[in-house]
Amino acid sequence: MTITKSIAKVRSIIKKQKLKNKIIGFVPTMGALHQGHLSLIKKARKDAGFLVVSIFVNPLQFGPKEDYRIYPRNFKKDRALLEKERVDLIFYPYPKNMYTAGFSTYVEETSLSKSLCGKSRPGHFRGVATVVTKLFNIVQPDIAYFGRKDYQQAQVIKRLTQDLNIPAQIRILPIIRQKSGLALSSRNAYLSQKEEKKALVLYQSLRLARNLVKQGQRKPHFIKTKIAKLINSRKNLKIDYIELVDPKTLKPVKKIDKKTLLALAIFVGKIRLIDNTII
Amino acid sequence: MTITKSIAKVRSIIKKQKLKNKIIGFVPTMGALHQGHLSLIKKARKDAGFLVVSIFVNPLQFGPKEDYRIYPRNFKKDRALLEKERVDLIFYPYPKNMYTAGFSTYVEETSLSKSLCGKSRPGHFRGVATVVTKLFNIVQPDIAYFGRKDYQQAQVIKRLTQDLNIPAQIRILPIIRQKSGLALSSRNAYLSQKEEKKALVLYQSLRLARNLVKQGQRKPHFIKTKIAKLINSRKNLKIDYIELVDPKTLKPVKKIDKKTLLALAIFVGKIRLIDNTII
Repeated sequence: MTITKSIAKVRSIIKKQKLKNKIIGFVPTMGALHQGHLSLIKKARKDAGFLVVSIFVNPLQFGPKEDYRIYPRNFKKDRALLEKERVDLIFYPYPKNMYTAGFSTYVEETSLSKSLCGKSRPGHFRGVATVVTKLFNIVQPDIAYFGRKDYQQAQVIKRLTQDLNIPAQIRILPIIRQKSGLALSSRNAYLSQKEEKKALVLYQSLRLARNLVKQGQRKPHFIKTKIAKLINSRKNLKIDYIELVDPKTLKPVKKIDKKTLLALAIFVGKIRLIDNTII
Repeated sequence: MTITKSIAKVRSIIKKQKLKNKIIGFVPTMGALHQGHLSLIKKARKDAGFLVVSIFVNPLQFGPKEDYRIYPRNFKKDRALLEKERVDLIFYPYPKNMYTAGFSTYVEETSLSKSLCGKSRPGHFRGVATVVTKLFNIVQPDIAYFGRKDYQQAQVIKRLTQDLNIPAQIRILPIIRQKSGLALSSRNAYLSQKEEKKALVLYQSLRLARNLVKQGQRKPHFIKTKIAKLINSRKNLKIDYIELVDPKTLKPVKKIDKKTLLALAIFVGKIRLIDNTII
């Protein structure tokens, strides 16, 4: 396993692998790896002749009041996990080498990125789209892997890849959950034991919605109100959004008469967590 | 020489050439080729093992009141010229295949693109940056060639290539002029004989500025006023802008005490023409 911070070194390694006609698999991460990441990496390991994982906490996708500084970082632990998964190359760049003096170019998806998390986190998806474009240009993957937990992110990345003719396939893999139902997230590391229990309300909300729909409920407003009631009945929880949207356009639906995405963002104490499901 | 409208075909041809370790040269154009384009193509032919020219009048870089519909198009003539220059591949896409349904991702350079033509043509450089990123992702050139006549465009493209880690070198080649001094431009085709004579005012303005600086003049305001006077003394000319800027930042200079870019945009009748020089 090669570990490098150098963009030039990644390029020269990838160039050699491409000349050997190897399929380049790529899993971009912000580190603090958990079983969600590892599910992507295991799948990528099966598909790819050469597997790259990047670890980069991207300052551009954090708002000024968000958790960039305290975002969990544990390179040693991550490295050991990636070694075990037989990753070929870890790209672990410095922010100053990703965003050099005079940096002034951004990639912006202007439709899918505007609802849901895009409303609560202005600039977030511009940061994501920009860094993913950069990483794709550096690593030049044939296939890149993203988790469905960040459903909107995955859709934005699929869209930008198509729109900008980036020659990579995008594969989106299922949410990995704890036995309790809590979706795995690097941000779960922030939660106290008590908060982790409180965070189960996300999964409970998804189940509540699922049951209501099973019972024949078709009105998004009714379902959202029920979920809001559940959440507001408990302490230290704050709703960022509860939305029922078309899974392709991410625009609110008026009636649940076909596959619909339920997406939630909830503050548990100060920690913002998201979850989603197709119902 | 292969001619194709198919993105997939370009990709498969390029992939083969890359596996042969050929250097891919690329000259993106909007067609209506003139000696300015040909100077880029001749240089590219010397550098590259495989030479691609694209012909695509990019709707995204034209404003709603600009000349997209009437922009000169002459594929037969262009093809003959490119054949003669021993171009390997012409990529000649349909707009609908470059901008498919749901297209919503844009590349935007937010500093260099804001002055000069960026002020008069809002959205223009976003359109340029987006299409160039797309073309680079399709053609995957090792070296791409642009003319200095579109000085600001060249700077924006250099910047975005660096910022987005696009693995292409950008080469910028000198302005090609008629004997009269008029800079070659596809838009010159719009000019009547009378207007073409009037258009010489651009080159005369550059010479005027040059002479003033030679004589020791250091004040941008003085030079701009002199040029404006020259232009306004003639009929059917309208100034869009006259600017003296730092050639790297494209921001106005207060004093001409180092290399300075003089950039002009002038309407000759209804035709907007640009020119520039370093003084």
